[in-house]
Amino acid sequence: MKKIILLFCFSPFINYAQNSDSLFIKKMSDDIMQNGKAYEWLHHLTKKIGNRLTGSDAYNKAVEWGKLIMQEAGAENVFLQECTAVNWKRGKNDIVAITSLNNKKQTTKLNAFALGNSMGGDVTAPIIAFNNYEEFENKKDEVKDKIVFFNYPFNQTNIETFLSYGENGKYRYNGASRVAKYGGLGCVIRSLSGSTDNFPHTGVMRYNDSFPKIPAAALGLKDADKLWELCKTNNVSLNINTHGSFNNETIVHNVVGEIIGKEFPNEFITIGGHLDSWDVGEGAHDDGAGCVQTMEILRIFRAMNYQPKHSIRFVLFANEENGTSGGKQYAQEAETKKENHVFALESDAGGFTPRGFGFKMSDEKIKKIQNWLPLLQPYGTTFLRKGGGGADINPLNEKFKTPLSGLSPDSQRYFDLHHTDNDIFENVNRRELLLGAINMAALIYLVDKYGL
Amino acid sequence: MKKIILLFCFSPFINYAQNSDSLFIKKMSDDIMQNGKAYEWLHHLTKKIGNRLTGSDAYNKAVEWGKLIMQEAGAENVFLQECTAVNWKRGKNDIVAITSLNNKKQTTKLNAFALGNSMGGDVTAPIIAFNNYEEFENKKDEVKDKIVFFNYPFNQTNIETFLSYGENGKYRYNGASRVAKYGGLGCVIRSLSGSTDNFPHTGVMRYNDSFPKIPAAALGLKDADKLWELCKTNNVSLNINTHGSFNNETIVHNVVGEIIGKEFPNEFITIGGHLDSWDVGEGAHDDGAGCVQTMEILRIFRAMNYQPKHSIRFVLFANEENGTSGGKQYAQEAETKKENHVFALESDAGGFTPRGFGFKMSDEKIKKIQNWLPLLQPYGTTFLRKGGGGADINPLNEKFKTPLSGLSPDSQRYFDLHHTDNDIFENVNRRELLLGAINMAALIYLVDKYGL
Repeated sequence: MKKIILLFCFSPFINYAQNSDSLFIKKMSDDIMQNGKAYEWLHHLTKKIGNRLTGSDAYNKAVEWGKLIMQEAGAENVFLQECTAVNWKRGKNDIVAITSLNNKKQTTKLNAFALGNSMGGDVTAPIIAFNNYEEFENKKDEVKDKIVFFNYPFNQTNIETFLSYGENGKYRYNGASRVAKYGGLGCVIRSLSGSTDNFPHTGVMRYNDSFPKIPAAALGLKDADKLWELCKTNNVSLNINTHGSFNNETIVHNVVGEIIGKEFPNEFITIGGHLDSWDVGEGAHDDGAGCVQTMEILRIFRAMNYQPKHSIRFVLFANEENGTSGGKQYAQEAETKKENHVFALESDAGGFTPRGFGFKMSDEKIKKIQNWLPLLQPYGTTFLRKGGGGADINPLNEKFKTPLSGLSPDSQRYFDLHHTDNDIFENVNRRELLLGAINMAALIYLVDKYGL
Repeated sequence: MKKIILLFCFSPFINYAQNSDSLFIKKMSDDIMQNGKAYEWLHHLTKKIGNRLTGSDAYNKAVEWGKLIMQEAGAENVFLQECTAVNWKRGKNDIVAITSLNNKKQTTKLNAFALGNSMGGDVTAPIIAFNNYEEFENKKDEVKDKIVFFNYPFNQTNIETFLSYGENGKYRYNGASRVAKYGGLGCVIRSLSGSTDNFPHTGVMRYNDSFPKIPAAALGLKDADKLWELCKTNNVSLNINTHGSFNNETIVHNVVGEIIGKEFPNEFITIGGHLDSWDVGEGAHDDGAGCVQTMEILRIFRAMNYQPKHSIRFVLFANEENGTSGGKQYAQEAETKKENHVFALESDAGGFTPRGFGFKMSDEKIKKIQNWLPLLQPYGTTFLRKGGGGADINPLNEKFKTPLSGLSPDSQRYFDLHHTDNDIFENVNRRELLLGAINMAALIYLVDKYGL
């Protein structure tokens, strides 16, 4: 009995292991591990172009470069999609400093970044510190004319760090407006990270237009700890001096490479990452990695002379970090052109060793994909589970119910680097990066061949 | 029908998920991720003590430190086991340089390390380069009075990098004596790595006593590539000037901490890593990580007030890198004292995110362990498979057929760092390191509770 059941459980493996799919995937894998270009491309993107905030010259350079690489990698068509996007600038260097109200020269500078989309200001005020919103709401009457410090800790007990990031997100996203609502003058938060270093982490925030747009910044973890300790026993004042502002909207572009489908040319499978980054570090893991993996899949499909049934789009999306107008534009044009989008996959969780994929689609479709697990396991995929997608491809799902997937790499190091000056090329490992591309290429190949 | 089968397949999960085991493991995990000491201990070991070659003062300091930490972590007994070991010294800095036979001042120094246990020498001779032993044997008549360069590449197509390391090992281990057999004067090899940098990798070699003990060294990969290209078109000469030598045997110690079993005090479960390292870098991943994970498990068992059935031994082994006399001594004393060793687990594959465990034991026992997979999966373990152990615990298996296991972390980065100046604390991630300890602690807990 047991034997029969085991046979049943593992039968997909036996079916697939010896067939052409496993051979094809192995060939792709061998070629990518030996001849893959993603790592060299990432070197160029990070070291020759650098970080790529929406509206920066570097972003536009990256678009030109991406177009060129898509052509070199063998896209049948390469085109740009124009869209308008917000144009936030940090301005000068951010300053957050512990200060004496009596003697403004006595300051201790903290490692801090203004939050993305926050407005500049120069505020010096007594600080009031909270662990979380509950404590804050209980003492909301004490907030007026103060700078609020939210020191919500990254939950280290989650094995999957994205869960902790999710728990913390609200402090970064709307902390400033909650503070302003009660008359607070500024907001600093503990960076959304569980790292052991002191790099501050920027990231997107939004103001509630009903309240004053007060300055908002994130502290490195060591400095957050220091400030927290200090606030326990002392009356501490803080100076926040930031320079964020919005210029007129800017024009940015998605870069789209294409291989035309042989059977269903108007049915599209999309693979992508986002080409923009914050204006710190080099945007290596976030999301240079996803961009070069996307182009690696284009390269390998052409190198293998793979003739897809569906049209496959390789997309470097614009403006993910502070607006997602690239992803919205992509879905909008799909609607205008009456394209049929059957599947989309995004890599935007870092270039680390892949562990699996998450899916946003019906259980039935996920079940079909789960049958392919034995074909992906040799390359590191261990799960194919519900829950996934990506900020840039979500609009496809919203408009057309397109089934989505997101690559899930090992998440342990991601929030050490995410949105910091430390998200640099040197912290990306060649093999880990390429393994992500292999698993993505294999999944796309299977979706293209067998449909969903 | 399908539903019944699915229920059968996942029934262990349903059984275990709500029981005390999963709660106990979750509690250990939460405590380790929040309060774990392994990372701070590793900092001390790497930064305050440094690399720890057998016979060095640093090794002896590490023993004293390990004893102290074991006591602090709550071992009921801590004792040292004395053993004699080889005492190899690198001597002065190694030099490998491309040189002109006519003008010895015209040299280009290459990044190189003499291999561990190799004897010094100062040789200048024309070089003859081979990809592999087959090519070498075909041209063995041309080897006399030359320096042989083995440029066997690291096989990037293996997803599991230990496979590639295994394929390459023979060039490092016995290349020199094969060269000496045919009258060659020196041997240089391509380092056993697939990295993108130029760090040379040392590691153990052995001479065949029938042939002259010629100098042997490993090159950084970029320099290996450079030399290989040069050899294609030019007559190249090389100077190898190394200073390795053996002093009189030395006395070294294993550090052993113990929690006494409540039911079976003379039945032992061993957990360990090796405290020695090569004399380069800081021995952070290899194998400082295994040592501090071992002591973390001691700490958490005491912190949880866990009363094991079996006696549990936490062992920092001596002399793994160039002799394994620590592991042999441990098994020898077990025999002398008539101890019954029921299980041993080693962590010696780096402090990276754990992916599973390999086992050296009967299929029946492995099957039993595989039932525990649902309890380990939440912490990253994805496989429990045949094939595993560790150099320091192997003697237990040889003597007593003790069932063995080795932790298998993600292997992508290990051979970038292994045996190099780059195996330093900064390249270890706190969460990845602690996750290894969690999975090991859980496995040990289950083996202790349910037996094998």
